[in-house]
Amino acid sequence: MKVVETIAEMRRLRLELTEPVGFVPTMGYLHDGHLALVKRARAENPSVVVSLFVNPTQFGPQEDFASYPRATRRDLTMLEKGKTDIVFMPSVAEVYPPQFDSWVEVGKISQRLEGAARPAHFRGVTTVVAKLFNIVQPAKAYFGQKDAQQVVVIRKMVTDLNMNLEVVTCPTVREPDGLAMSSRNTYLNPEERRAAVVLYESLKLAQRQWSQGEKDAAKLRQTMTALIQKQPLATIDYVSIADNETLEELDKVKPPALVSLAVKIGKTRLIDNVILE
Amino acid sequence: MKVVETIAEMRRLRLELTEPVGFVPTMGYLHDGHLALVKRARAENPSVVVSLFVNPTQFGPQEDFASYPRATRRDLTMLEKGKTDIVFMPSVAEVYPPQFDSWVEVGKISQRLEGAARPAHFRGVTTVVAKLFNIVQPAKAYFGQKDAQQVVVIRKMVTDLNMNLEVVTCPTVREPDGLAMSSRNTYLNPEERRAAVVLYESLKLAQRQWSQGEKDAAKLRQTMTALIQKQPLATIDYVSIADNETLEELDKVKPPALVSLAVKIGKTRLIDNVILE
Repeated sequence: MKVVETIAEMRRLRLELTEPVGFVPTMGYLHDGHLALVKRARAENPSVVVSLFVNPTQFGPQEDFASYPRATRRDLTMLEKGKTDIVFMPSVAEVYPPQFDSWVEVGKISQRLEGAARPAHFRGVTTVVAKLFNIVQPAKAYFGQKDAQQVVVIRKMVTDLNMNLEVVTCPTVREPDGLAMSSRNTYLNPEERRAAVVLYESLKLAQRQWSQGEKDAAKLRQTMTALIQKQPLATIDYVSIADNETLEELDKVKPPALVSLAVKIGKTRLIDNVILE
Repeated sequence: MKVVETIAEMRRLRLELTEPVGFVPTMGYLHDGHLALVKRARAENPSVVVSLFVNPTQFGPQEDFASYPRATRRDLTMLEKGKTDIVFMPSVAEVYPPQFDSWVEVGKISQRLEGAARPAHFRGVTTVVAKLFNIVQPAKAYFGQKDAQQVVVIRKMVTDLNMNLEVVTCPTVREPDGLAMSSRNTYLNPEERRAAVVLYESLKLAQRQWSQGEKDAAKLRQTMTALIQKQPLATIDYVSIADNETLEELDKVKPPALVSLAVKIGKTRLIDNVILE
């Protein structure tokens, strides 16, 4: 496994890789969700590149860029075990030199849900992912369904801008009690950690009611909201049932529908989702 | 020479081309300036792709998209003589399907000069050029110095977004009297055509004064402005002497400086430039 810190060296080593290349972009502090992406990339491609880069442009000024958890040495050990060929971990200055001023932006669907709560978030995501795609030139790139809107936005970018690669989405990996794995779970104290299971419980409740015939999206949102509000540590940011391509809110559930939510548990903002199909 | 109208077929034929590929993006209605780009691409690459696409997203609502001159059959004859391998001429619907909503945007330098007069112009240019680069995957792409700011903006996009290709700029090709070749020259009536030479004359005047020691940018702009104002058919949009990378207006000329101007001759808006170096 080679660990590369500059774009120039990444490009040079890229030329020696056997085609096609599978690519897993991450912000590090890896968990089993990331490792499932690496495993899938490994199974589908002779070469695997993983990036570790906490991308400042996708964090708002009041958000947790500075405190975002980092554990590079542990990440590298996990990636070595996962048979990664190249780990690309550039500095912020390498990715964003002082005069940097070019952006890739997806329109309307970037403004909904997470984009409404985090205005410049997806512009940062699409810009850094476009840059990484141009540097790594993968045939396939792997993303977790946990960040559902990110997947929808990146697929849109790839389609609209004719990027020559395939986006592969992998299922959300969960803790035994159902909490979606996330690097931010490390912020939770034990009491909050127990409370955090309410996100997935509310999603399962919606899924159950839908499978029992409930098609009214407002009723499903209401049921979810009521369940979450019983949890004193939880504050709802949004509960959404939307079309999984346009991300427009639905009146009547029509599959595939994205049920997603953002909830603060204490001070930690968590997201999760399921698809009704 | 193959003429291709769909992205899928362009991708398929692209796979058969000998590397590296030289690419000349154009809006058609070709003149000797375009042909100089094709010639240079031909000399430097075993394969040459030229696109003909009048890009609607780089025209403002009050601009000349609908009336922009088109002469596809003549263009194809010229490109055949220039030994082009593939001409890519997609429809607007092929490039911009109904739900299209992803954009590539260069910041500050897109807002100056042409960008000040034409607010969404460079967003349209960078978006379509990024798409074409992703489809054609050239090693080198060729642009004319005539559109000086376009060159600066595209170079910035390529650098910032780590696009894996080289931008090659070719000198402005001029008519015998000095008028820069442009598809829009066809809009000029004979009287306007004679008056249009004032753009290049003002640039030559600035160049002469600079080479004789004049470093004061305000004085150079004033001399140019005075000359153009003597021409009754001319209306100045801007006369600029700016840094050729940041496009910031200069007080004291420091090479390389971009001397550029936009002038209406009758109803036709023309641009031209020289570099002081």
